[in-house]
Amino acid sequence: MASSTKTPEMRKDTVFNRWVIFSPARSRRPSDFKSKSPANPNNSNSSCPFCIGHEHECAPEIFRISSNTNSDWKIRVIENLFPALSRDEELIQNTNLNPNPSFLTCISGFGFHDVVIENPVHSVLLSDQSDSDVGDVLLAYKKRVLQLMCNESIKYVQVFKNHGASAGASMSHSHSQIMGLPIVPATVSIRLDSMKGCFEETGKCSLCQVQCEELLINESKHFVSVVPFAASFPFEIWIVPRYHSSHFHELDDDKAVDLGGILKLMLLKLSRQLNDPPFNFMIHTSPFMVESSQLPYSHWFLQIVPQLSGIGGFEIGSGCYINPVFPEDAAKVMREVNV
Amino acid sequence: MASSTKTPEMRKDTVFNRWVIFSPARSRRPSDFKSKSPANPNNSNSSCPFCIGHEHECAPEIFRISSNTNSDWKIRVIENLFPALSRDEELIQNTNLNPNPSFLTCISGFGFHDVVIENPVHSVLLSDQSDSDVGDVLLAYKKRVLQLMCNESIKYVQVFKNHGASAGASMSHSHSQIMGLPIVPATVSIRLDSMKGCFEETGKCSLCQVQCEELLINESKHFVSVVPFAASFPFEIWIVPRYHSSHFHELDDDKAVDLGGILKLMLLKLSRQLNDPPFNFMIHTSPFMVESSQLPYSHWFLQIVPQLSGIGGFEIGSGCYINPVFPEDAAKVMREVNV
Repeated sequence: MASSTKTPEMRKDTVFNRWVIFSPARSRRPSDFKSKSPANPNNSNSSCPFCIGHEHECAPEIFRISSNTNSDWKIRVIENLFPALSRDEELIQNTNLNPNPSFLTCISGFGFHDVVIENPVHSVLLSDQSDSDVGDVLLAYKKRVLQLMCNESIKYVQVFKNHGASAGASMSHSHSQIMGLPIVPATVSIRLDSMKGCFEETGKCSLCQVQCEELLINESKHFVSVVPFAASFPFEIWIVPRYHSSHFHELDDDKAVDLGGILKLMLLKLSRQLNDPPFNFMIHTSPFMVESSQLPYSHWFLQIVPQLSGIGGFEIGSGCYINPVFPEDAAKVMREVNV
Repeated sequence: MASSTKTPEMRKDTVFNRWVIFSPARSRRPSDFKSKSPANPNNSNSSCPFCIGHEHECAPEIFRISSNTNSDWKIRVIENLFPALSRDEELIQNTNLNPNPSFLTCISGFGFHDVVIENPVHSVLLSDQSDSDVGDVLLAYKKRVLQLMCNESIKYVQVFKNHGASAGASMSHSHSQIMGLPIVPATVSIRLDSMKGCFEETGKCSLCQVQCEELLINESKHFVSVVPFAASFPFEIWIVPRYHSSHFHELDDDKAVDLGGILKLMLLKLSRQLNDPPFNFMIHTSPFMVESSQLPYSHWFLQIVPQLSGIGGFEIGSGCYINPVFPEDAAKVMREVNV
């Protein structure tokens, strides 16, 4: 079914420091990609605890953003009813299990796992909201990140959204999640080390240089959306601040609306082009404690990954991904989607 | 639905250098895990090119292992009809695309992508075969790895098996895959660096120390099967040589039969306990070129991952995994499965 005359190519993702194989021979035409399992076949809300009026069925609220309309609230940030980490644990090094301490390292499962309910109405998706409303969701993330920053045991905060069951969402009501971690994850350390390598070689921040004409999808006043040069996944998108900034929580109100607009646009384009695919988005920021020498090359961004195919043994084993769609082809398709 | 009184815990996987969150509150009882989508609901072979008699529908054969019975062959190693990398490419550094060479690194997609058809009969799974027949499949891997080693552009070989569509298998006839890569994948470099760190701290190879009573599933003359201390996935299993060895291709005939037996046993136990789940297995070996100083701490092993749940934004973003089943609980369940 190959339609491209391109030959395979391996590209290095210099942000995440991994190789990606681009293999057009395994592909349909870029414009033929569609999700086989749309994310929201069932939009029933008969027993959804995230809906307005069901607040008592949820874990405790952390804060809410009030509504200008006659609704009680616009956004709620609550504890996760089934948290992966426990805010009630003490952070302790656990050596009980350790006959060989240096091989078996463990700590107690202290941390925070919160949920952001993005709006009170079950059927409203994030991309259905206005630029400014999406901006308010982003500012709710920021507010919670700043709260978590006050806890000195929390080293990194992962903000993410799972949309659709096969992307990991257990609730269909539109929501995101925020996890405050007592460690800096390896992926974050690898990213910072890799961006440092680029900076030392070129004197420039690699994400300040990301804007390349054939990879560009859209741009706004403060942000660009691109398919990255070595995208791991077909139709993966990065939204990158055009200004240099290490931490997502530096986002101000004006930029939040701007980011809300381009995020909404990308989600609409993905949904239109790929048949409402399940997707994840993740905010890649810097650890709270970064040295001033790290600031020139650590640049936050938002990554969107539509879930079009699973991963197999090659990806688990090698950490290399096989992407059947060249980034410049995906970017061209995405540039041209009408929404 | 939590049945455990355990509190969450974070453990560091010192082989892959990543943290894993163990979160029993999100779990069913360990013994209740079942795959919702068994791997082989449809075992029809009406048009399978991997079946005996259909050899002409396949890409070229590389070699075959003859059968002692009246069948033409027992195992065939063939080229992949839709290879991710091309054996006909020249390995070249491609700078055509590169306005900023240090940000945009790419090479041509040179490499090998082969398929091992594990037996001639459509409905026979790897775990249906005898210890010695599974051993022959492992020796076919070894033979192909040794062939690829003769090509000086190939730096690493990833051997893997995808079983079931959701684990990435596009064909239901039992097969494995072998990819010869012109680079050393980042996951491999990270693993070697992490094992080096352990070795420098303790003077011991971390995988020579892996045998811990409560993590043990089974042992054979030359191998142990364990649930690793910081398993990323529920019911993940590692089969580790009890003898120190850096390269899978050092496997001799005697050890191949022994490994065949314990691999078959683990696959049968997973299938029985977890309702024939889709799974992947991967052989983690060392790059062809390792320095003699690396040999004391690089120790090959085989990882089996049943696909019981997908990954979401947290895992993609942070590289941390959330595992609802403590390894010692999974090991106890797996020790006690009758097959």
